[in-house]
Amino acid sequence: MHNMEKELLSELHNRGKIARAAILTMTTLAGCGHPGGSMSSIDVLNVLYSYIKHDPKNPNWDERDRVIVSNGHISPGVYSALGLLGYFELDTAIAQYRKLGSIFEGHIERFVPGVEWTTGNLGQGLSAGCGMALASRIKHIPYQVYVLMGDGEQQKGMISEARRFAVKYKLNNLVAIIDYNRLQINGVISKVMPQNIRHNWESDGWKVLEVNGHDLSMIHSALCETANSEVPILILAHTVMGKGVPFMENLEKYHGSTLSEAQLDEALKHLEVPNIIDEYKKMRDDFIYLPKTDKPNEFSLKPDFDPGAAFIYDKETDNRSAWGNAIGDLAKLNKDVKMPLAMVDCDLMVSVKTGEFASLCPDRFFQSGIMENNAAVLSGALSTCGIQTFWADFGVFGTAEVYNNQRLNDINHTNLKVVVTHVGIDVGEDGRTHQCIDYIGLMRNLYGFRVIVPADPNQTDRAIRWLVNQPGNYLVAMGRSKIPLIYKEGKNLYYGADYCFEYGKIDTLREGKDACVVVCGTPVGRAIKAIEKLQQEGFFVHLAYVSCPLGMRENDLSQILKHDLIFSVEDHNVNSGLGTILADKMVEHSCHSRLVKIGIQNYPISGTSEDLYRISKMDTNSLYERFKQEILAKELVRANGKKEKN
Amino acid sequence: MHNMEKELLSELHNRGKIARAAILTMTTLAGCGHPGGSMSSIDVLNVLYSYIKHDPKNPNWDERDRVIVSNGHISPGVYSALGLLGYFELDTAIAQYRKLGSIFEGHIERFVPGVEWTTGNLGQGLSAGCGMALASRIKHIPYQVYVLMGDGEQQKGMISEARRFAVKYKLNNLVAIIDYNRLQINGVISKVMPQNIRHNWESDGWKVLEVNGHDLSMIHSALCETANSEVPILILAHTVMGKGVPFMENLEKYHGSTLSEAQLDEALKHLEVPNIIDEYKKMRDDFIYLPKTDKPNEFSLKPDFDPGAAFIYDKETDNRSAWGNAIGDLAKLNKDVKMPLAMVDCDLMVSVKTGEFASLCPDRFFQSGIMENNAAVLSGALSTCGIQTFWADFGVFGTAEVYNNQRLNDINHTNLKVVVTHVGIDVGEDGRTHQCIDYIGLMRNLYGFRVIVPADPNQTDRAIRWLVNQPGNYLVAMGRSKIPLIYKEGKNLYYGADYCFEYGKIDTLREGKDACVVVCGTPVGRAIKAIEKLQQEGFFVHLAYVSCPLGMRENDLSQILKHDLIFSVEDHNVNSGLGTILADKMVEHSCHSRLVKIGIQNYPISGTSEDLYRISKMDTNSLYERFKQEILAKELVRANGKKEKN
Repeated sequence: MHNMEKELLSELHNRGKIARAAILTMTTLAGCGHPGGSMSSIDVLNVLYSYIKHDPKNPNWDERDRVIVSNGHISPGVYSALGLLGYFELDTAIAQYRKLGSIFEGHIERFVPGVEWTTGNLGQGLSAGCGMALASRIKHIPYQVYVLMGDGEQQKGMISEARRFAVKYKLNNLVAIIDYNRLQINGVISKVMPQNIRHNWESDGWKVLEVNGHDLSMIHSALCETANSEVPILILAHTVMGKGVPFMENLEKYHGSTLSEAQLDEALKHLEVPNIIDEYKKMRDDFIYLPKTDKPNEFSLKPDFDPGAAFIYDKETDNRSAWGNAIGDLAKLNKDVKMPLAMVDCDLMVSVKTGEFASLCPDRFFQSGIMENNAAVLSGALSTCGIQTFWADFGVFGTAEVYNNQRLNDINHTNLKVVVTHVGIDVGEDGRTHQCIDYIGLMRNLYGFRVIVPADPNQTDRAIRWLVNQPGNYLVAMGRSKIPLIYKEGKNLYYGADYCFEYGKIDTLREGKDACVVVCGTPVGRAIKAIEKLQQEGFFVHLAYVSCPLGMRENDLSQILKHDLIFSVEDHNVNSGLGTILADKMVEHSCHSRLVKIGIQNYPISGTSEDLYRISKMDTNSLYERFKQEILAKELVRANGKKEKN
Repeated sequence: MHNMEKELLSELHNRGKIARAAILTMTTLAGCGHPGGSMSSIDVLNVLYSYIKHDPKNPNWDERDRVIVSNGHISPGVYSALGLLGYFELDTAIAQYRKLGSIFEGHIERFVPGVEWTTGNLGQGLSAGCGMALASRIKHIPYQVYVLMGDGEQQKGMISEARRFAVKYKLNNLVAIIDYNRLQINGVISKVMPQNIRHNWESDGWKVLEVNGHDLSMIHSALCETANSEVPILILAHTVMGKGVPFMENLEKYHGSTLSEAQLDEALKHLEVPNIIDEYKKMRDDFIYLPKTDKPNEFSLKPDFDPGAAFIYDKETDNRSAWGNAIGDLAKLNKDVKMPLAMVDCDLMVSVKTGEFASLCPDRFFQSGIMENNAAVLSGALSTCGIQTFWADFGVFGTAEVYNNQRLNDINHTNLKVVVTHVGIDVGEDGRTHQCIDYIGLMRNLYGFRVIVPADPNQTDRAIRWLVNQPGNYLVAMGRSKIPLIYKEGKNLYYGADYCFEYGKIDTLREGKDACVVVCGTPVGRAIKAIEKLQQEGFFVHLAYVSCPLGMRENDLSQILKHDLIFSVEDHNVNSGLGTILADKMVEHSCHSRLVKIGIQNYPISGTSEDLYRISKMDTNSLYERFKQEILAKELVRANGKKEKN
């Protein structure tokens, strides 16, 4: 079993030459790309794909083994290996590599058949591998996950997080492979950043096998050895940058430099592969960019959970508890459905209220410890495997700490539900490092992420029950404190039994014509009180609650923009949240009203939530005074205008 | 030398009791905070401060040893240790802990005397320690740096980056100490996230000493052993959560729970310290929050470099090269000045043009490899040590990848100059993972960071020469491609010999009344061409260049807002950059003009920079067409309006 058949060996030897020719041709043709690492890793790739369980004609086969290539810049190697196996026409990949509109982009993208995970930013692949390896266990579909990595990227700290996670969860269906060519952009890795890679991995409990990464039989034997291991295994494959073309070997410049056409010719002669670059040039010219039409996202989840019955809160509580209760209820109701629910936590179970889920579904609750970068990526990857995945954390850890991981998730079309608690100065005494006041500003940069900020526990309950059946990426944000329930003027619950959450809907909590207050988040209760106080004085203020600051419905928005005096109120950086989004919309809609933005003006300090709202002028009284002052000023202007006219 | 004097031992023993009483009193008084870890680490803190070279009366003494506490939540322990030494009145800290307006915040803040670095987000302290240890070497001021960490935070990957950096640079003046109490929020660390901390550190080349963290002599001996070590040393201090009060010991709930007053009383009896909580309550009540007045930032650098003479580019080049040349020139000119310049790089020397600096100042050039999180924090820390610190990287790595590190830098009032290249779709074929189109959107969340996006190589040169003499945090962003030089209409260079960079100034590149185009970044050359084409057709468009999108001068801005048709053009996410800032300003200034936002509408793809500009409608022709279409539409409306009036 451990010995490769001669025929396969010869086939792979041959494939190595053709793949190398392809790598060099496509990079020369494109005039850019990364040939060096592609050539050092191509033998590993070829042997790996000959070893694993997969079907190039059915790249989405549920039982396939997964290959994640963490160092996405070796795309020429990946495209060559996959093309040779029939995932697509290799000639197409060669001709179109890096050309506008081609799927064969500079870094590997998930929409290329055979590519499981879009990469490019280094260090994230092993965490994605953890997610996919967990998915195999959760869904009882046995498959292996192989994560190919570069050696330079071993410097990234988050790889150690993924290593620890894999060992904790005994992910013995996970195999890591490092293309150990010992060169990175600026030279020998031992000079750029000395590192004992083997010791690093062993120190986290991985078993390490070392192989000659150009000895096909040896690679094959190592892969065989990984089967039935108790612990996850790393194969450290000693390789040569630019391997296969003598004048390229061991030169770091070929990390990111391509051959001239004359050099290519020389290289192909050495590889004994005919040079048909002129044909590829023609094919390349013939490929014309077509803008993508809006087709449904092929990576979307199609969940069909029982959302259960609304839980009606009639006593004040915190949104966190409502979220915890709702997800617990959903877990109970959907125990036996086909699509699993999963939850990831980062050592904050009690605070983020994941305890009930954890005790109900211990096999689908994953404790990632204080390793947020790993948690973000593994959750994202899990959510691509037909698993509705929630990750609960504090605001600052679920967004700011992992922004680039979330960006890569979004690029990967994940279906991640990030539920963050402890946003805003509402966090209180923990101070500015823990007060997340930029979550809207951060998510606004990500084209796919949607944001939900529920107003009270009842809306939280309904939003979560709605969310469980959504594909795509969402951030649900909530504060820390207990917040008052929202009532209609008639003292019925606003988000009562008849309420259904609708993404983008703006909720009219109070009607009035003197001004419009638009609130997002925890200050809503204070705003209501301020408005009720004004009402007693004969001022009628419209109150709109925005639970979806990035997706406000145009119709609802136009109702707001009719008012000539608009306030935005948010427990968020005033420069980057609701207020600035409203300003944008006002300009877009030629709304010439006055906008008064109320929010956080600078890094906050320690103090009780109540104290912090007060000094941020978002306590009931400050809001009342500010609203009144602006309404009076407006009326004064109007009165003066009338006087002048008369 | 290794044996503590009896007198000191007895003093420290006593100090341990008083400190523990202080920890418990302040947390009970505040009703929140983290007593457990404070008590497990207090013996280490007390011995450490008795051992190091420092002067509580002169906390900024240049030659002091530095203590960084990475797990900033043990603030009660830190305040107690420092208060007992006379950095401030311990009673004040006890009484004011976590109260609004007090410097004794929930997590330690740098403005508390004796606190070197604000922490709270875990895992960052060792990188800050690396920065401060390097500063000792650069400035030839011998001191030691001690970094105290929690055991839970060892899970954070970026600590491994800092370990490698320390070993590479042989930072033998750096000592790490771990408070190994084996408990984190959710329980025993070996269950939450199993980890062999000793092996992890050894695998990166650190020497590890293990001590009983409550044996004062043993801690002292270990500290003595760290002197004159060849390699950096970790002291793994085995401790007990809640140590000193039997009913608190080894219970994870005391990570973040405080004692009731009755429990406090019992605990203080055990510690043989009188309970005077009522006096502290009175002091606490007496402390009244006063809003901070705008005083100069005490942490600011006061640089006085020779900015040299402007280098005038008369041939097209890339801004990257202009930056590299300028910083090289500045390095040459300022070889012998008192304040050093330093540069940090992440394996991208050739691309980000730090090579000249590196060869001129090899002892002040630091190669952090592919470890951006470490680079961000160590650069920030370096910049607090009287060193003007530049960190050069690709846009996506200097901002998105390290957003929370930059946030903590900003909170720390660092003086960091982040110079990022390869922003925008201008990056080209490397694709969306590498195209940084959110740098303005990200930085807009950080109150202290300023952003500079130079228009051409000449402005780059002048901006860098200006920047070298600035305190505070800046991001300088530039694309990858060669970009045309900007000329005045008379064919003189716009940013010529007489030009001086001024932060916030908006540059009028062309004057006109038919519309105003506002550009930030690389598209400026294309915008000029589009406008010149329109000029030939009799349309005169005003062209304003915004190099400082977060700090546009109000006067300059009002010139823009006079126009009734305004375009924003940016190689940036159209939802979060210049366009949205302009919209905000328009609303603020009651400007009712039409704003047309041109920018990136979705995640980009691979392709040449030229191709990507074309499909993003930011090539010369698309801009020309869009400008013209909008101007004609405006004129039509005006003509119809006139007709109606007539």
